[in-house]
Amino acid sequence: MNRHRLLIDCTDNVGLVNQITGVLASHGVNILENDEFVERDENHFFMRTEFSGVFDSGKLYSDLAAVLPQNALINLTGKRKKNIVVLVTKEHHCLGDILIRHAFGDLDAQILAIISNHQNLRELSEQMRIPFHYISHENLTREKHEEMIIKQISQYNPEFIVLAKYMRILTPQFTSLFPNRIINIHHSFLPAFIGANPYKQAFMRGVKIIGATAHFVNHELDEGPIIAQDVVSVNHTNSAEEMARKGRDVEKIVLSKALNLVFEDRVMVNGNKTIVFE
Amino acid sequence: MNRHRLLIDCTDNVGLVNQITGVLASHGVNILENDEFVERDENHFFMRTEFSGVFDSGKLYSDLAAVLPQNALINLTGKRKKNIVVLVTKEHHCLGDILIRHAFGDLDAQILAIISNHQNLRELSEQMRIPFHYISHENLTREKHEEMIIKQISQYNPEFIVLAKYMRILTPQFTSLFPNRIINIHHSFLPAFIGANPYKQAFMRGVKIIGATAHFVNHELDEGPIIAQDVVSVNHTNSAEEMARKGRDVEKIVLSKALNLVFEDRVMVNGNKTIVFE
Amino acid sequence: MNRHRLLIDCTDNVGLVNQITGVLASHGVNILENDEFVERDENHFFMRTEFSGVFDSGKLYSDLAAVLPQNALINLTGKRKKNIVVLVTKEHHCLGDILIRHAFGDLDAQILAIISNHQNLRELSEQMRIPFHYISHENLTREKHEEMIIKQISQYNPEFIVLAKYMRILTPQFTSLFPNRIINIHHSFLPAFIGANPYKQAFMRGVKIIGATAHFVNHELDEGPIIAQDVVSVNHTNSAEEMARKGRDVEKIVLSKALNLVFEDRVMVNGNKTIVFE
Amino acid sequence: MNRHRLLIDCTDNVGLVNQITGVLASHGVNILENDEFVERDENHFFMRTEFSGVFDSGKLYSDLAAVLPQNALINLTGKRKKNIVVLVTKEHHCLGDILIRHAFGDLDAQILAIISNHQNLRELSEQMRIPFHYISHENLTREKHEEMIIKQISQYNPEFIVLAKYMRILTPQFTSLFPNRIINIHHSFLPAFIGANPYKQAFMRGVKIIGATAHFVNHELDEGPIIAQDVVSVNHTNSAEEMARKGRDVEKIVLSKALNLVFEDRVMVNGNKTIVFE
Repeated sequence: MNRHRLLIDCTDNVGLVNQITGVLASHGVNILENDEFVERDENHFFMRTEFSGVFDSGKLYSDLAAVLPQNALINLTGKRKKNIVVLVTKEHHCLGDILIRHAFGDLDAQILAIISNHQNLRELSEQMRIPFHYISHENLTREKHEEMIIKQISQYNPEFIVLAKYMRILTPQFTSLFPNRIINIHHSFLPAFIGANPYKQAFMRGVKIIGATAHFVNHELDEGPIIAQDVVSVNHTNSAEEMARKGRDVEKIVLSKALNLVFEDRVMVNGNKTIVFE
Repeated sequence: MNRHRLLIDCTDNVGLVNQITGVLASHGVNILENDEFVERDENHFFMRTEFSGVFDSGKLYSDLAAVLPQNALINLTGKRKKNIVVLVTKEHHCLGDILIRHAFGDLDAQILAIISNHQNLRELSEQMRIPFHYISHENLTREKHEEMIIKQISQYNPEFIVLAKYMRILTPQFTSLFPNRIINIHHSFLPAFIGANPYKQAFMRGVKIIGATAHFVNHELDEGPIIAQDVVSVNHTNSAEEMARKGRDVEKIVLSKALNLVFEDRVMVNGNKTIVFE
Repeated sequence: MNRHRLLIDCTDNVGLVNQITGVLASHGVNILENDEFVERDENHFFMRTEFSGVFDSGKLYSDLAAVLPQNALINLTGKRKKNIVVLVTKEHHCLGDILIRHAFGDLDAQILAIISNHQNLRELSEQMRIPFHYISHENLTREKHEEMIIKQISQYNPEFIVLAKYMRILTPQFTSLFPNRIINIHHSFLPAFIGANPYKQAFMRGVKIIGATAHFVNHELDEGPIIAQDVVSVNHTNSAEEMARKGRDVEKIVLSKALNLVFEDRVMVNGNKTIVFE
Repeated sequence: MNRHRLLIDCTDNVGLVNQITGVLASHGVNILENDEFVERDENHFFMRTEFSGVFDSGKLYSDLAAVLPQNALINLTGKRKKNIVVLVTKEHHCLGDILIRHAFGDLDAQILAIISNHQNLRELSEQMRIPFHYISHENLTREKHEEMIIKQISQYNPEFIVLAKYMRILTPQFTSLFPNRIINIHHSFLPAFIGANPYKQAFMRGVKIIGATAHFVNHELDEGPIIAQDVVSVNHTNSAEEMARKGRDVEKIVLSKALNLVFEDRVMVNGNKTIVFE
């Protein structure tokens, strides 16, 4: 079926849903799924519509623009897989989960390449037939290393960059190139345990639940818009290593869930927060 | 603020959202929250809208009827507390939770009376200043006992009847008087462990998770439309009694959650299933 | 049944379980439940045993002391309800939950009194027949106000003090009087959102899960040993107020769960962490 | 470190823990982790101990037998990976999860071979370098097909057989060959939705939570001892296919969790129930 997605992000006005659905009706398309949200404090309107039908997309776009506020962002896409590049360090669990999904069509994305500062995941990547690029950070400044990664990424021109346990902090120079297009999995229930070694922090604090957070990456470490979170119980018998082992299952499921939400165009960004139309 | 709720349930047509929102716009009301759902297999449309504004409700109703399919059910209400009667047997945890919420305005309902076939909960009910009616089932046929309860209920003319651990099975004669207006809490994760003593059943089966289910009551025991469910972990050290103790916390939270969803007009019934606009 | 609990906390030695169970066997008691934990990093041993039987408690105590390291803490108690005083401010949900459980014997405690700096919960307390003491903080220094509360508490000589949404920060002078005997419910998933207004903080951060934490209170705000935690999902449609409403159900269940763990002598404190023998 | 596991399963007697730990002490070994459980109704004792040290295993075994009841089952093993064979049909998610864990040493097992009645998972198996045997069931009686599978399995002599979404029902002839050694993942929250197509059943019933169950397989379909379960929320917008998609993440995590519990000798079977020493 010919399925399309329309995302609208603009100042709220009385009657917007009526006007938008009126335009869609005038083009004879059939709405399959529709969600809207109004952020009251900021008087801001967000809408996601899936519809089918044959239509003139240029005309639909201009008809929508005619009824929407001037600041409206209108995003109209046919349903298709997103192109992505995955960055990893040494840990295999998130990459493994993504690769298995990818191999069987469970991920709404095409993995173009995997880039790592270590060789540990080369074999898995090649077994699963994805190009693997090793870009060591040794003897390089952070800026020079990132420059090499960016150069490699740019050869693939991906729509999204997935940090599947990439354990180096990205500079603002890097992140500003890909606003709301870098997705990271952080191994804690943010904002608890920001920064390094969250399982060790969790163990030291004696928490009874640990978690994981998938989020867009912006200039501040672990401070970008949260897409998805989940948790798992722990207790006094769990060492920091056992917490990490339990946490890995949560990390991979949360990351893959967030990726599919993003790739299905279900996530809209509002400042430092997300609207997720599940 | 003058807040209204509109529920619509009808055959789906292309352009329904546009037509409904067009009618609302023509009355000058302001949509605050809007959810719709189309059941594809049955081509059926469900919509819940909250809006504010001053309008002529008779005119709004007839304008909506004019654009909707003939089978449309249109329900237009101002936001207000529902009138309810609560039936209980001996267990206090669900009734206690409801009474505390009621006393402090956390329940979107007015509890008119409590009816029980035992005296155990009289003291609590009276401490919380709700009329308590003791209608013993001893030496009565089931039909005669229900007749007495129905007579007592009818004095209060409630919109909903809440079975807060009422441990007797209702006859179809009873339930058919209150279609989709009786809400029960069942102490298992339905459809597992239908019928009597589900915690004993769960213990005997050796399950690792137990749960509770709030549902509308219809003619078949524990088979009505499910409104809400939740679970809690158990293990081999838990006796059937300990499972029951853990389960009670889930039961009361699930029942109160379901009640507020129903009382806020967020639950629509579709055959034996519910649409819940959270 | 005559049921006893033995708690032991000492440096770990090879053969401790054998020696302790040997002493118990020599007294002819019957072990019903037994849990032990060794903190490897600190080489520290924790044990909780429930047993039945008739025995000489002075002799048992001295026999245990003879086989245990010199630093051993030995706590031997018959199973009985703990005496507690509850401090509250204005919110009713945690107090209401505790009072209902108390009224029906579901809380392993005797509530001696309720103390508050506001009058809001007087009526509920009196309906449930618990003495209520209003000690306003108005026109008082923090120290003077605490002095008055301590004086009131001391008239009851409770074993534990429960902060059931008591919204004032206690001074070290207060908390040092009751080491590991004050239990607080914090309305966030600690260590996320320490301090004031955690639901507002959670809303501003755009988290997808919120939680609650029951913990012992020590000198640092929200930094004491965690006893129990739980979470609930939220999303972009939830205002800070709605998060607070969802959170209240988690708060009351987590607090009551923690209270029963403590009152059943299932919680041992190890520095800033707890061992919970569930 | 030289780490050993001792499992004991026998009638309960007063003083058993003392006698067992006495024997271990006399052999000079160091207990690292110890769990016991007494099933009161059946007066049955279960114990799992991990210890380190150098000892004479024949002597330890006979010394234990001397103090234990005659019906005692004593299982003493050094910690090592279990040998397994995995049976699959067409779905990749559970096998993929197991293979990734296996490749990086996260599964306490050696996968000797994969057997399937379809070719769908051959490529993945071979990419991950595990022998794959295709044994079609076409034109074969169930008995003949099982005979061929058993013959293939027996060439590997595995300790456990894992049904990672093997979608054919095994006959009692098959299951009786491997008592408590076949582990299955069932795609529902047992005992709800026993049998075929549980997601379709869940969709039709309108449940709000779905789940998965890992269990040993015995003669009755889906009736064997449950090892682990978990759940995930669904709602009215989810089709049966979407429930299946959500469910797959739960299935793979629950199966892998159960496998590691079994492979670490943490699961003891008591009739139709399990004792899980986590």
